[in-house]
Order: sequence, then C-alpha cells, then structure tokens
Amino acid sequence: MTRAVPDVSETAEEHGTAWRRIASELETAIGRGDYAVGDTLPASVVLAERYGVHRHTVRQAFRHLAEQGLVTVSRGRGTQVSARRVPYPIGRRVSMRSNFGKLGIVGSSETLSTAMVTGDAETCAQLGLEAGAPLWRIEGLSRADGTPMGTGTHWLSVERFPDFDHVFREAGASMTAAFKAVGIDDYVRLSTRLTARLASEREALLLEIAPGAAVMVSAATDALPDLTPIHLVNSVFAGERMEMVVEPFKE
Amino acid sequence: MTRAVPDVSETAEEHGTAWRRIASELETAIGRGDYAVGDTLPASVVLAERYGVHRHTVRQAFRHLAEQGLVTVSRGRGTQVSARRVPYPIGRRVSMRSNFGKLGIVGSSETLSTAMVTGDAETCAQLGLEAGAPLWRIEGLSRADGTPMGTGTHWLSVERFPDFDHVFREAGASMTAAFKAVGIDDYVRLSTRLTARLASEREALLLEIAPGAAVMVSAATDALPDLTPIHLVNSVFAGERMEMVVEPFKE
Repeated sequence: MTRAVPDVSETAEEHGTAWRRIASELETAIGRGDYAVGDTLPASVVLAERYGVHRHTVRQAFRHLAEQGLVTVSRGRGTQVSARRVPYPIGRRVSMRSNFGKLGIVGSSETLSTAMVTGDAETCAQLGLEAGAPLWRIEGLSRADGTPMGTGTHWLSVERFPDFDHVFREAGASMTAAFKAVGIDDYVRLSTRLTARLASEREALLLEIAPGAAVMVSAATDALPDLTPIHLVNSVFAGERMEMVVEPFKE
Repeated sequence: MTRAVPDVSETAEEHGTAWRRIASELETAIGRGDYAVGDTLPASVVLAERYGVHRHTVRQAFRHLAEQGLVTVSRGRGTQVSARRVPYPIGRRVSMRSNFGKLGIVGSSETLSTAMVTGDAETCAQLGLEAGAPLWRIEGLSRADGTPMGTGTHWLSVERFPDFDHVFREAGASMTAAFKAVGIDDYVRLSTRLTARLASEREALLLEIAPGAAVMVSAATDALPDLTPIHLVNSVFAGERMEMVVEPFKE
C-alpha cells in the first residue's frame, strides 16, 4: 500500500483513524521491543512527518499510550516508554506463541521443571480422571523477545499423554507444538479465570519484576474440540507487560 | 430437592461432584458475606454431617478454596476466610448487578460524581463521535453486600443520552437500569481489556483495600445489539475480591 501525500489539514475522521494506527504501531513496536522500557519515543514532529499527519495526531496517539500505562509524557524529556504491555486475546482459541507471532514478536518458552505426580482429587476431577491418577506437572516460562511475560504450571494426564515431559521439552515448551506432536492439531479454551494479586518472591525473580509488583493470575482449562478437558494451566503474568483481551463478537 | 441419605462410602465420581458442590456453596457464602474475612468456617466433621459426605470430601473443598486464595487452612485454627473473591462472568452480556443476584449477593452502587466534559479525540472515536463532542463522565462505586468491589469511570454521549447524569443517579448507579430507563432494554459487551497493577491511594481508599494492594484494571466497551458502541467504562476492581471468568463456550 502506498502512503497518501501528507495532509496536515486532515478531517476529524481522518484524525480519528490516523492516531489509532500510530498508537497501534507504537504499541506493537514497544511490545516487540523496538523501544525498551526507559527509551524515549521519537518526537511528535518526527513521527508526524513519518506518518504524514499533524503533530496533534501523534500527540493523541501518545496520550492513548499514556492512558494504557505504556508511556509517560513529560514536557522536558519527551515521551518515555514506561511499560511494555502485550495484548493477549482470550477467546475460544488461545495460543501465546501464535498471538506473539501476529504481533511481530518472537515468542519463546523454556521448561523449568517436569514431574510425574499423584493427582489430587480436584485436579483429576477437572481433567475427568479418578482421584489419584498420575499427572504431569510441568512448569514453564514464556518470553516475548526475551522479556519474561508469564510463568505457568501445566497439568495433564500421564495415561493420556505418555512421555509428555519429553514431548514438551522437545517442542520448545510450546503447548500448541507439543499437542501437535502427539496428534492433537486443534484444541479450545474452555475457561479462563483471571484475578490480580502481588507477586511472590519466586514469581518476581522468574518474571524479572519488582518484588511486590502486581501480577495477573490465570487459571485456565483447555479441551479437545469436543470439549473434553485435557490440560489445566495456572499462570502468573507480569501485569505491567501483559493485557488480556476479551472480544466475544470477534470469534 | 431432598438430600440423599448420607453415604460415607461414596464412589470417586460422587466424591468429585460432592466436593465441588460444597466448595461452590462455600464460595458463594463467602462471596455473599455469610462468612467474613477472618471468620473460621465450620469444621470438616460438621460440614461432612451437614452435606452427608465423608470429611475427606469437605477437606477437598477446603483445599480448593485455599488454592483460590479464599481461605487458609491451618491445623490449629481450622479453615479461615482470607479473601472474598466473587466470580464475574465476562461474556457477550456483562451485568454486575444481575451477576451478583444470581450468586445471592445484594449488589449496590453509588454515584461518586457526574460531569459534562468535552470529549477528547480518543474517547469520542471509541464512541463513534467527532472529537470534542460533549460527554458524560460519571464515576461510580459498586458494592457486594456492602463490600466495595470496584470503581469505574463511565463515558457516554450527552447528545445521545441527555439528562443521563440524573437518569444514572435515579437508577441507583446501575448502568443496566439506567439504560432501561432511556429505552435500551438490551446491550452487549464488545470488548474488555484486563490487566493488573497496584492500587493508587485514592483507589485504595475507595475500595477499602491496603495501599499498594493489587487491582484488576478493566477497559470495556458496551454496544447496542447491532454493535454500535454507546458506553465506555474504565474500572478498577479489588483483586482480592473479584475474579473475571471467561467461558466462551457457555454463551
């Protein structure tokens, strides 16, 4: 697509579209790491010229980012990146890696631990298993362009998924890739419960956030397309870096 | 429904159903305020007799509540309520008051402030208005059985909703009731963005939480059934009291 000739006398409607596009591109650039926390964004006059808009339009984009908590605007020092919050859609299908991919972010994960444990009654019931069934308990950590975003504990049936500890490690700690490797090409998100609390010491260390920073806590259940639950994951996300997006009419 | 005769030799399947029902009823009772934070729940033997189950089943329910962060279980002091977290479904329709009603909780709200302001470009664009259109900015506080759960700033078009400041106050600060009063019997939730951060001083005062406690921050857009946006609301919920539930296959 070619850019239109810069038009500094844009209508209100064009302004409405333009600042959104600029804000969205800056959000993605921040989310992708083009600008790190503490970096100063280009001045409004520079971006106005780059985008071919009035600098008020760029300032509107800056105000939007500020309201999202992503930047702080000060007259003296310009517009500084204060947080990197990546949107993460929670719908019928949830995949962190493919979400990052769409945003131009390189997602990576690592396996922190794998263990075979005797399932407690609750976890087994949620997976449709009898109490005491053997379960995989797998801890992982996910990064976006190297920045830790979340850490999660996964629970799956050992009987249903033998060797899943190895499969998961070999799949680069991606649940989607691990499921593909065991013949499950599609799965759905049944339920996500979200709340906020302060990070524990260990969570703060893993996520590289301040001790006592706010985390978003998620308890989620994934299922086969026929809605049979196969995977539970309890995750903790850095509140300053991740935002869950629920848009029920977009599915 | 009559209760079955107590059966302490219940099968694993019955156990799986029973502890969930007990946990859910205790969650609702905690959410409703039957037990306050700091209260001790009845002993497992007492509840086992009341529900006609083995006390291990009750203990399983207690463990579930503990994992949700709602109670702390200690051998000496029994099971104490540590938080009151009310589930709040975020789907195609979102109404705090009717959600509370379903949980047996009395929801109430108050209007903190109303003002007519000149809309900034971003807010106006989200409402399909030209920049600078007059907007209602209405602050409210919502309680569940008297406990503050969340505080929000609402944005609506003055032209579309003349006198909405009075309508909202007269509707007891319920958006659903206020919309009904202006002839809108149905509206839908287009989008909810959720993240976590630490409470500001003012938010902590309003929500009666510790300064620096974690809050869940929500930016939401409501629309007419034809998906025309009519209402924005930026809310802050006490993380220790509220949990957002996303279940896309339940709609």
